Amino acid sequence: MDKKIIFDLLNSDGGETLAILAAKKFAHENPNYKLLLVGNQESINNIFKNNLPENIEIVHSPKLLHKTDNPREILREESSMLSAFNLLKEDKGSAILSSGDSGSFLTLSALKVNRISGVLRPSFMPIMPSTNGGHFLLTDVGANVDVKPEYLVEWAKIAVEYHKLFFKTEGKQKLAILNIGTEDYKGPEVSREANKMLMESKNSFDYIGFIEPRDIIDGKADIVISDGYAGNIFLKTMESSFLAFGKMLKSAIHKNIITKIGGLLLKKPLKAIKNKFDYHTVGGAFIIGPNKVVVKAHGSSDELAFYSALKQIKRALDENIIEKVERAIKGDE
Amino acid sequence: MDKKIIFDLLNSDGGETLAILAAKKFAHENPNYKLLLVGNQESINNIFKNNLPENIEIVHSPKLLHKTDNPREILREESSMLSAFNLLKEDKGSAILSSGDSGSFLTLSALKVNRISGVLRPSFMPIMPSTNGGHFLLTDVGANVDVKPEYLVEWAKIAVEYHKLFFKTEGKQKLAILNIGTEDYKGPEVSREANKMLMESKNSFDYIGFIEPRDIIDGKADIVISDGYAGNIFLKTMESSFLAFGKMLKSAIHKNIITKIGGLLLKKPLKAIKNKFDYHTVGGAFIIGPNKVVVKAHGSSDELAFYSALKQIKRALDENIIEKVERAIKGDE
Repeated sequence: MDKKIIFDLLNSDGGETLAILAAKKFAHENPNYKLLLVGNQESINNIFKNNLPENIEIVHSPKLLHKTDNPREILREESSMLSAFNLLKEDKGSAILSSGDSGSFLTLSALKVNRISGVLRPSFMPIMPSTNGGHFLLTDVGANVDVKPEYLVEWAKIAVEYHKLFFKTEGKQKLAILNIGTEDYKGPEVSREANKMLMESKNSFDYIGFIEPRDIIDGKADIVISDGYAGNIFLKTMESSFLAFGKMLKSAIHKNIITKIGGLLLKKPLKAIKNKFDYHTVGGAFIIGPNKVVVKAHGSSDELAFYSALKQIKRALDENIIEKVERAIKGDE
Repeated sequence: MDKKIIFDLLNSDGGETLAILAAKKFAHENPNYKLLLVGNQESINNIFKNNLPENIEIVHSPKLLHKTDNPREILREESSMLSAFNLLKEDKGSAILSSGDSGSFLTLSALKVNRISGVLRPSFMPIMPSTNGGHFLLTDVGANVDVKPEYLVEWAKIAVEYHKLFFKTEGKQKLAILNIGTEDYKGPEVSREANKMLMESKNSFDYIGFIEPRDIIDGKADIVISDGYAGNIFLKTMESSFLAFGKMLKSAIHKNIITKIGGLLLKKPLKAIKNKFDYHTVGGAFIIGPNKVVVKAHGSSDELAFYSALKQIKRALDENIIEKVERAIKGDE
């Protein structure tokens, strides 16, 4: 049976065209994959010039999501994101991709998608770049502010399956818990308890204990587990700091003709740094725990970013990630 | 009466000499201030060539602090930091400065110094640089992992007094609570409750609500309040990210002869960025809440950093910060 991905085309910062172009490219390259494009039928037809490939279906749902904190409003007001999740609920596909508001995306995922049997709480998991040129998985980054030690342990097990999927590293994954110090007695009780549980359990991964922001940024762990509060603060601080530094550097280069020449001479290695931290090639952030593949693309995704996310989803489906997670969770019941 | 500062010379990364040179300069410029230097008598005499100024006293206590998490060990094992705190407890001075381990410093401060009447919990408060060239106060950054809403409100009031002291800005201080979103319903219950309390109370400052990392880094608030968990994660992530970016930039410049020339042409504006984030001129981090002036200098302080911290302490004493905090706390009882 062909695999189907439901793709909410609207709600990205850059408009729907980039999403449609990415879908076109992906559909062309992967004839055994079906795409269910949710958005404005006219815009889609314009791009395909009424010559829609066989493996693309359109679901006309042209309304943008109205950002709100109220789950009832998200469910009541028509939007392409809501339509996409309804299609997923009706089993019209086995994966969903959207670049809309994270909060609404998390809410709809919680309300419209069942959890894998045995999973306590879904968690949000982006792929983060580190300064050594590699990547690490970070979870949770905002779905769960209040957590229990069991959640952290569960996310550790699930994240390991995703790490195998994306990076296929040889040997065991280095997994750590984000904390304000590396000593066992540091940090919130929940983290200390989870640390103890992971220390004492037999793991399929290499549990390296607590980790501080510096070592995460330097890429000392493959997977970092956290409550959604500290994880979100870490994620946003790291992203904002790099962005702020980049801006300062740019304005330093634009200062005068001398500095502009300096910037030109440094262009190549500076570009290499920028590429290292480019999320466009990385794909989206996964929600781990639902029994479908649920992926949130960056709000400012371009064609490449959407395309990378689709490829990432394909990989997750081809490798049966949901079944693998099910087995990993069951393994210790 | 002359004011006395107790100065633990040992326990810094760079050795005692830089601390002694800073003390020498400060003592020379401030004859009405007494310094009680705690460290190795011989080293101190070597630098002063047995010609000690009248306003310097030496307390011979040559043992380095042995870093430990056990408060009993910190209290039992002889160290210059312990000696310094004992002198403070015996009222031999009204301020203390040390660059030793933060954890031990916090422990000794809690055990050896009384709190200002009415203060619930002392809190750790560094002065942080922002990308707009200014600074903001951030508290707590690690003294209190578990907090109550009342603590956050109390730290807000105290921090405002310190901000007036250091920056004397016209108008009201912009004060915010660190969070994972700006909406009232976001984040941990403690933060939401403190947010409500500050919204509803009549404040001497301008309470601007929740703030996210990006806006903090950009300098949108003068004072940022947080529990010690998220505050510590934010602080370390920001510091480590800038450091990591700086390192990558340095290695980009050192790549080859072309990039080296590029680096030379950019030297001046890059230096300006570096200066903006230079902690050496900023001084130390205050513990707010004790009824003495308690300041922790950076572990890798040089002469300028120690000297800046001493000047900062002088200002705090000259302006009677402890009394001002007392009044601010009493004001709403």
